[in-house]
Amino acid sequence: MLKTPVIVLNVKTYSEATGKNALEIATIMDKISKETGTSMAIAVQATDISMCAEKVSIPVWAEHIDPIKPGSHTGWTLPEAVKNAGAIGTLINHSEHRLILADVDVCITRAKELGLDHIVCSNNVATSKAIAAFSPDFVAVEPPELIGGDISVTTADPGIVSGSVDAVRKVDKKVKVLCGAGVKNGKDVAKSIELGADGVLLASGIVKAKDKEDVIQDLASGL
Amino acid sequence: MLKTPVIVLNVKTYSEATGKNALEIATIMDKISKETGTSMAIAVQATDISMCAEKVSIPVWAEHIDPIKPGSHTGWTLPEAVKNAGAIGTLINHSEHRLILADVDVCITRAKELGLDHIVCSNNVATSKAIAAFSPDFVAVEPPELIGGDISVTTADPGIVSGSVDAVRKVDKKVKVLCGAGVKNGKDVAKSIELGADGVLLASGIVKAKDKEDVIQDLASGL
Amino acid sequence: MLKTPVIVLNVKTYSEATGKNALEIATIMDKISKETGTSMAIAVQATDISMCAEKVSIPVWAEHIDPIKPGSHTGWTLPEAVKNAGAIGTLINHSEHRLILADVDVCITRAKELGLDHIVCSNNVATSKAIAAFSPDFVAVEPPELIGGDISVTTADPGIVSGSVDAVRKVDKKVKVLCGAGVKNGKDVAKSIELGADGVLLASGIVKAKDKEDVIQDLASGL
Amino acid sequence: MLKTPVIVLNVKTYSEATGKNALEIATIMDKISKETGTSMAIAVQATDISMCAEKVSIPVWAEHIDPIKPGSHTGWTLPEAVKNAGAIGTLINHSEHRLILADVDVCITRAKELGLDHIVCSNNVATSKAIAAFSPDFVAVEPPELIGGDISVTTADPGIVSGSVDAVRKVDKKVKVLCGAGVKNGKDVAKSIELGADGVLLASGIVKAKDKEDVIQDLASGL
Repeated sequence: MLKTPVIVLNVKTYSEATGKNALEIATIMDKISKETGTSMAIAVQATDISMCAEKVSIPVWAEHIDPIKPGSHTGWTLPEAVKNAGAIGTLINHSEHRLILADVDVCITRAKELGLDHIVCSNNVATSKAIAAFSPDFVAVEPPELIGGDISVTTADPGIVSGSVDAVRKVDKKVKVLCGAGVKNGKDVAKSIELGADGVLLASGIVKAKDKEDVIQDLASGL
Repeated sequence: MLKTPVIVLNVKTYSEATGKNALEIATIMDKISKETGTSMAIAVQATDISMCAEKVSIPVWAEHIDPIKPGSHTGWTLPEAVKNAGAIGTLINHSEHRLILADVDVCITRAKELGLDHIVCSNNVATSKAIAAFSPDFVAVEPPELIGGDISVTTADPGIVSGSVDAVRKVDKKVKVLCGAGVKNGKDVAKSIELGADGVLLASGIVKAKDKEDVIQDLASGL
Repeated sequence: MLKTPVIVLNVKTYSEATGKNALEIATIMDKISKETGTSMAIAVQATDISMCAEKVSIPVWAEHIDPIKPGSHTGWTLPEAVKNAGAIGTLINHSEHRLILADVDVCITRAKELGLDHIVCSNNVATSKAIAAFSPDFVAVEPPELIGGDISVTTADPGIVSGSVDAVRKVDKKVKVLCGAGVKNGKDVAKSIELGADGVLLASGIVKAKDKEDVIQDLASGL
Repeated sequence: MLKTPVIVLNVKTYSEATGKNALEIATIMDKISKETGTSMAIAVQATDISMCAEKVSIPVWAEHIDPIKPGSHTGWTLPEAVKNAGAIGTLINHSEHRLILADVDVCITRAKELGLDHIVCSNNVATSKAIAAFSPDFVAVEPPELIGGDISVTTADPGIVSGSVDAVRKVDKKVKVLCGAGVKNGKDVAKSIELGADGVLLASGIVKAKDKEDVIQDLASGL
């Protein structure tokens, strides 16, 4: 499983992180991860998993899996397919790709069956606690209104981080907690650890940065 | 654009067509397409597009695109991403992955913007006609109740094929029509052409066959 | 069927139009409709259909039906149930309640089976044309970005109205066309008729008005 | 809040329970509830809430609420609207009407804000436990594959009932647990209580019965 504390990048469907651009970012993370000994992972689009997984050593993840088994499910994301392409983990229930409750359960179960590490996203303390009931590897709390914004969740709403840590641990001590939304620099990362989290999940902070190497260095310095 | 008449395979998320298995089938189709001069294409999972597109000459397609532009859409299928991975076309609105009407419009528009060939699936004559109003490259009519079954649409419901051909042509003569569901052999393919279609869209007929080469040969013989 | 030209009010789920508030608005419309001889209809929440239908003479409509038949569909809106409660028509595929293409077809078919008048909403000329292929009673074109706004579609985008009228008539001459979004006064109504529409579909223009009677009078004067 | 143990009927969208048929069943339940002192409630379609709530003394419930506040949400079920029509409670997340995890949270919160009693449906022990994290009034566990069938969950899968009771109580002792699927007679009801549940949620067992009064009497005898 992902070593913690960890920095997980979700590249979403940004053009700055599609195809070769995704590989470029993965390569920078790979280099800085090795140099600094920091645990990092990158979640990329399904189309880009195999290319990235072949070329970098940091864990390459899927951004999503659908609650399905092999069969007739045209165009959905089969957990086996992302694993087979080289993903060692997957996000589940990101706020931009929410699942019905029963399917959160199915996706976590499928990830466990296949040995896929998994981060299940929540949007507040109550949903963090509910997700913990499924004993996933990680819960990542991200207030939707702060995603893509300029103020880090660790500044704008530190209570949602510490509250999620408490609520999750009360249900299952083995479940780790990440936080995300607006995370942009080493200070935000350090604050997340201070609040009890095991790392951060971020996207635009890296993907939209002019100097990605600088930002990733700075983020790593926060751990 | 796809030369017609054409045989299009949708491998869905069958394990018999995930990863290397997808490439194996694509390779057989590629070989028979060359030997017989038959136009063929294969739609594969997003994870497998780049691998297949690198290795075979027949057109590799995506099974689905989502109605989005580059941006923050975690885990959805970006049209640019499938094109970038090597897809030259995509299915849209497959009966296992239906879209709201406004998004059928967006997906067709996005495919046209990017120069992605596209087949838009319908489930009856009325929806075939409605889709034709968007002037897509192809409409593929597939009665959901016959998909994956043993009786070809061309036998079970020939009227849905000829009816779709008529209805589509009345709205836009340039739109081509495929048919699918239960298509398994050369006879079914020949019948589809007789009914006015420009080819077939099939899945389990090839993917679940013991001797895939045999079946593909037989299908090609129907054109 | 609704006499045209017509003014159709969709009260949505505004608190100003829930329960007795819905009945109050329906009563004002009823009165002005009689006084002026203007054709009007009101679409209300499912919970409020029976109360309104009992008390007013103008047609009471549902805001939505689901693509289902009687059976085990907990909490969905059964077409038979809204008819039974007194609705004589229904909106279908409102931009706030979009349906997959195949279900637009099912809902129109179900409405026809039950003799429910129906207005199917579109968001642009292309979707207006696609919907016309199903030969519904009415298509109502509403650009989503103008809904609830201050500028009437008839001013902001007259071409979408005349373009929809043309496109719809080309596919099926019997299908009538309404327009909506931002419609607020008699001028907007008059302009819609000038553009070839058979009336308007509106919501906040009446529901959010301080003096609803005044606004409804003014709207009626535009016909 | 509902007195327990309780028998809750969900009439779904069966024609045998639409309009006057719903009222007829509610009237029988009302009578038997009074005669036997058994706690009973009936969840009916939105269109039928006001009629039933006016005429019977047992609690009338909604079958569903949507995760919305008053505003522009055409055709969705506003919590305020069902309360205003006379509902004193609502089902949430029925297996035929599943919600995304974040919306389960929103619906429970909205129900609490409005003082609406609520039963949140789960499909297995894991989802029962997750729902308990939101501290709803009731969790009702119903294995989807047994819904509408001939074998009661209490016979076919007693462990899912006792397991849900244990899991829910471990998270929040105040949350009550119902069970459902295939429940048809007094024996099934008695067994549910034996397994630790606070009552049953059923549908076809009553709605599809030839002699509804007989069945309701028998069910009541199980408490």
